[in-house]
Parts: sequence; C-alpha cells; structure tokens
Amino acid sequence: MQVAGTPFRTIRPIEFGAVEIIDQTLLPHAFERIVLRDAGAAARAIADMQVRGAPLIGVTGAYGLALALMADATDAALADAIEQLAATRPTAVNLRWALERLRLSLAPLPAAERAQQAWRLAGELAEEDVAVCSAIGDHGLALIREIAARKGGAPVNILTHCNAGWLATVDWGTATAPIYTAHDAGIRVDVYVDETRPRNQGASLTAWELGHHGVPHTIVVDNVGGHLMQHGMIDLVIVGTDRTTARGDVCNKIGTYLKALAAFDNDVPFFVAAPSSSIDFAIKDGLSEIEIEQRSQREVTHMSGLTEAGRLETVRITPDGSHALNYAFDVTPARLVTALITERGIVAANTEALAAAFSERVV
Amino acid sequence: MQVAGTPFRTIRPIEFGAVEIIDQTLLPHAFERIVLRDAGAAARAIADMQVRGAPLIGVTGAYGLALALMADATDAALADAIEQLAATRPTAVNLRWALERLRLSLAPLPAAERAQQAWRLAGELAEEDVAVCSAIGDHGLALIREIAARKGGAPVNILTHCNAGWLATVDWGTATAPIYTAHDAGIRVDVYVDETRPRNQGASLTAWELGHHGVPHTIVVDNVGGHLMQHGMIDLVIVGTDRTTARGDVCNKIGTYLKALAAFDNDVPFFVAAPSSSIDFAIKDGLSEIEIEQRSQREVTHMSGLTEAGRLETVRITPDGSHALNYAFDVTPARLVTALITERGIVAANTEALAAAFSERVV
Repeated sequence: MQVAGTPFRTIRPIEFGAVEIIDQTLLPHAFERIVLRDAGAAARAIADMQVRGAPLIGVTGAYGLALALMADATDAALADAIEQLAATRPTAVNLRWALERLRLSLAPLPAAERAQQAWRLAGELAEEDVAVCSAIGDHGLALIREIAARKGGAPVNILTHCNAGWLATVDWGTATAPIYTAHDAGIRVDVYVDETRPRNQGASLTAWELGHHGVPHTIVVDNVGGHLMQHGMIDLVIVGTDRTTARGDVCNKIGTYLKALAAFDNDVPFFVAAPSSSIDFAIKDGLSEIEIEQRSQREVTHMSGLTEAGRLETVRITPDGSHALNYAFDVTPARLVTALITERGIVAANTEALAAAFSERVV
Repeated sequence: MQVAGTPFRTIRPIEFGAVEIIDQTLLPHAFERIVLRDAGAAARAIADMQVRGAPLIGVTGAYGLALALMADATDAALADAIEQLAATRPTAVNLRWALERLRLSLAPLPAAERAQQAWRLAGELAEEDVAVCSAIGDHGLALIREIAARKGGAPVNILTHCNAGWLATVDWGTATAPIYTAHDAGIRVDVYVDETRPRNQGASLTAWELGHHGVPHTIVVDNVGGHLMQHGMIDLVIVGTDRTTARGDVCNKIGTYLKALAAFDNDVPFFVAAPSSSIDFAIKDGLSEIEIEQRSQREVTHMSGLTEAGRLETVRITPDGSHALNYAFDVTPARLVTALITERGIVAANTEALAAAFSERVV
C-alpha cells in the first residue's frame, strides 16, 4: 500500500543479504526504514516489535534464517538459528510454522545451497501472503460493491477494530484488504477506526495506513461503535481474527465481541477477514478451548504519545496504587458472525460450511 | 466518603461566606482543596470543571448565588448572578434548576435577608442530594446482599462505567452508593472499573475514589467487560444515568449500551442507579428523542497524565491528519435494563412501573 504516495510493503529484499523493514514502533509519529543484514538484527526486529502481525513475523523470521545461513549453513547452525528466531516471540504460531517449513526444505540440501534456497523460500512466503490477502480483498470487494450499489454513490461506512491492516501482513492486510481494494476500484468508503485500547493499534496503525493510502477515515474510541450502529451510521463491520475455530468462533483483539453484539442488535453485517491459516480445525468452542493471554498492566496504566514539543513521552493515566487487568483477546461466538471472508471466498461461520470450503484441512 | 482515611464531601461550607471544594481537574494525580469566597470563584470552579457532575454543579451554583448576594442582594444583582452562574455550563440542566429554585424563594424576600436564606437553601440542596444517594445505596445494598448470600463469602464482582461516584455528587454517588454501602456493611465487593475513554473518568476518578475509601477494584479498558461477563467474572453491572426516559431508556456515558448488550447476552443483571431527578417524563424514546452531544476531537487525539518525573504532560496519540468523532453519550434501550435503582426503591424499566413509582411527576 502507499506511504506518502509511494507503494510500500512491510518487508522488502533490496539485495541478496539485505532486507528492508519499517520500524513500526515509531508509528504513527515517524516513518523510518531499517535494513536487516544479519540474523541478530532480524531477531531483534521481531522481539522489539519493529515488525508485528502474524504473517509479517513469519516472513521476517524466514529472511532472518536466510541471513543466518549466509554466515554459517551447517546443520548445527541451522538448528540454532531456528531456535533463536523462534524464541523471539514464543507464542507466535506463524513464526514457528514458517521456520519449520523452511527447515523441511533446507535440511536435505548441501550446506552451500541453503542460504540461497532460504532466501528464495522467504520470498515465496511473502508472495503467498500477498496473494491470500489480495484474494480476501477481491471477495470482500463484492460485498462492498453490493452495498455501494444500494447506497447510490453515498460512501459505504465500515467499522473496523484493531489493526488487521497491511502493516500486520506483507501487503493489503486482512480486514483492510476489501477496503483498499474497494477504494482503489473507485468505490467511496469511509472507515470508522476503533482506537483499540489498550495498545491503540487502531488509532495509531490503522488510521496511519488508511491516511497514507488516501482512504477517508475517522477515529472513534472503542465505546462509540454501538451508538454509530444504532443510528444507521455503519453499513458493515470488518475485523480480523487471530484464531478461528472449526465452527467459526473468532478469537480476535479484546473488544471485538462487544462490536459483534452491537452489529447483531442493529442488523449490521459483521464480517471477519479470515485467511485460512487462522483457522484451527482442532478446536470448536472458542470460549472454553482458547486461553486468553493476559498482558502487562502497564499497557493500561500508561500511555505514550508526542508532546507539543515533538518529543515522545510516556505518561501514567491512572491513580497511583490502582491495579489493572489486561486481557488481550476475546472470543466472538459464531452465532454473531455474518460470514468469514477467506481467500477462497465468503464462507458461513459454521462447521459444515468451513469443512466444505477447506475439506483438506478438516481433522 | 473517605480520602486518605478522612471523611470528605465534594463541597463543604466552612463558615458563612466560604465553601470548600476539591479541585477535581487535578485528580487522580493530586488532591487539592480550594476555598470559594465569591461568586466569581464559584463560576470559575464550574466553568473550569473543578467541580463536575450534575448534582455537585447544582449545589456549587447555589452556594455561588449565596456568595453573590453577600456582595449585592438587589433584584438586579440577583438576576445578574443567576444568569452569570447559569452560563458557566449552559447544558447543565441541574444548575439552571437549582438556581431557579433559589430564585423562587429569594425574590420575595427583602434584600437584606437574601444572602442568609440562599446559604441555607444551598445547604438544603446538598443534604437532599446526600439523602437521595444514600437511599439509592440502601436499595442497591439489598441487591448486593442477595448476591453475596448466594456466593457464600466470595466477593461480589461489580462492573461500572464512567464516574457516577461521590465525586459527581455531594457524597455517596449514584452508581457507587450501593457499592460503598455494601462495603461499609462488611460485604466483600470487587469493582471492575471501565476506563471510560475518551475522558477516562473511570480510570481516573472512580478508581481514585474507590481506592481512597478502601474498596478493592481493578481498572479495565472499555473493551474488556464483554470478556469478563462471558467468563462469569461479573455478578452485576451498575451504571449511572444522565437522563432516563418515561419508559426507562437510559442515556449515559458513551459505551454504556455495549456493556448492556454484553450483560443481556450473558444473563448478568444490569442496573442503573437513577435518582428521580434524572427521569424526564416528557420523553419516551431515548434513541430518537435525545440529541447526543459531540465534544472536541482533542479529547480523543490527546491524552494527559503524569511523566516519570512527576510532571503533568499532554501527548498526542493519533497520526497527524487523522480526525476523530467524539460522541459523549449513548442510549441503552429499556429492554436491556434489568431495573432502575431509585431513591424510592428498585423500579422496573418500563412506563407503567415508572409512572406508578413517581405518579406525581407523570406528564
């Protein structure tokens, strides 16, 4: 997607042995690129969250492995590099999955060929992610086009939560792919962006990327979405998913469930952009089978931003002595989900439809 | 309620001609008291939101009028003072109502008696507010006691939104009155406090006052309540109301509706502490009949807090160029409200029950 008029991806090989990323920790206040030239730099980029989002972390890990093998491609070095890279974000399933996929392909090769092959595979992973997101964009476009036709030229108002945007993938994003695709196709869209406390990924990342791509958008605090839907100000909701169960329960950023309830109460379609990699066919009941991560209370009690003088500063916003509880995700039951937008098309959020669409994956 | 072990009220006459308030703009980071000795100081305290909350604004306005009349009690001065005080918060219905009530009683009096009488009436207003809140506390106590009995000594977990606490009234608060009353009666309560973006009245004011009174509490961002209710972690919700319709629709701080939906979806009782002064018997349908105030987008894009060095600082948390929409309230339909806790007891949220409980008020 575009940054200040120039097409960008979140990760980009610039020459064999050098891959460029965006330092996302500085967003939305500064846009800086970093070139990774060794595995240590790649590992730090993941650990320090200069790159974030499951697909992007996976691709960065793969490039990191290629960089490691350029220095040392022995069996021991291959195993070490995978362990070190995987340890940077231990709960990131995608990272471990990407590294294991590379291991399978690299282990049988002579050491001298491994770095080149790893570099090629990392590029393949990136292109696959772009293709999946782009397909989600095309399928979502059809939904938006239909609403646009009904509205006779008035903007289609879309609510989104958190950042399931291109910054979390290689390009397009998941929840944002239909939005960018529609916007690029000349359909008027207006995006209401949930702030997404406590980490504010909506108000910082989603708003930033929509703004740079020229998509009209409005930031709202997480409390506002229900009111907007009660007053007919939202035509559809599109969110991402961190994990989708075999029956279509959706585990996504905390607060998603509240928006799904409001959408249901007001007959607003609630869509989940779900790349099939997010679907876990081994679990059914998201509420009882998914353990929700608790994160540091400092994310709630403190807030960072730019002072009037342009300096990044962190302030405490709660009383001294009050503690906070910080659940990172919640589960939206399938009954509240209108449908999933997958790379294979729109799929109803139930066991039968998901099994039919991804029959090769069913456990 | 208590501050650092000492009982306090939000407003307190210390001698004829001097009334003490808490400078609430400094909370939760500093506790400072201010003595108002003339009408100008009272007007500034209201305009600058050193006092806030409908009942407290009304009482402060009444004391402000008394202070004005000590300087000049002519008919012209009485009219002027009322206009100037009412203009400090033009949308605060309670302020205008309190001033008009004083006018009715003061206008027939000789000028020499007006200041004394105004001072007495301001005190009466304050005591009435305390009595109403205390009655809401007693009626709510019965609800909490019932749940406590079922839980056999485990804490009763209560979710609240925004600050309907003693800081918004003279003492007790509305939504917090049952909580303080239960806590003081030795019932174990644990309060989940919604942060309440964008102005964070929950995370700053409610958490501060609960903490000082010794009530166990936990701050959560507004996105968390649904997850807590899905997992049986909330026994009841108690919120305040800015305006209640004749059929029981509740206009309260933005985001209240989302919590009501989650409570309904999870069979969690959703109570609204509603002093009868909040009930507007002239309107029925809150969604179509109440216009929702929009406030400055700066409340969304900027955040204030304490730096590591202990300095108050304001930071921008959104991208340069992204704009925000800031609705202050939303409407929770009566169908989602378990009941209202009024000073006359628990009243079902429907036209018949409200008319029966407040028959003298029905239009």
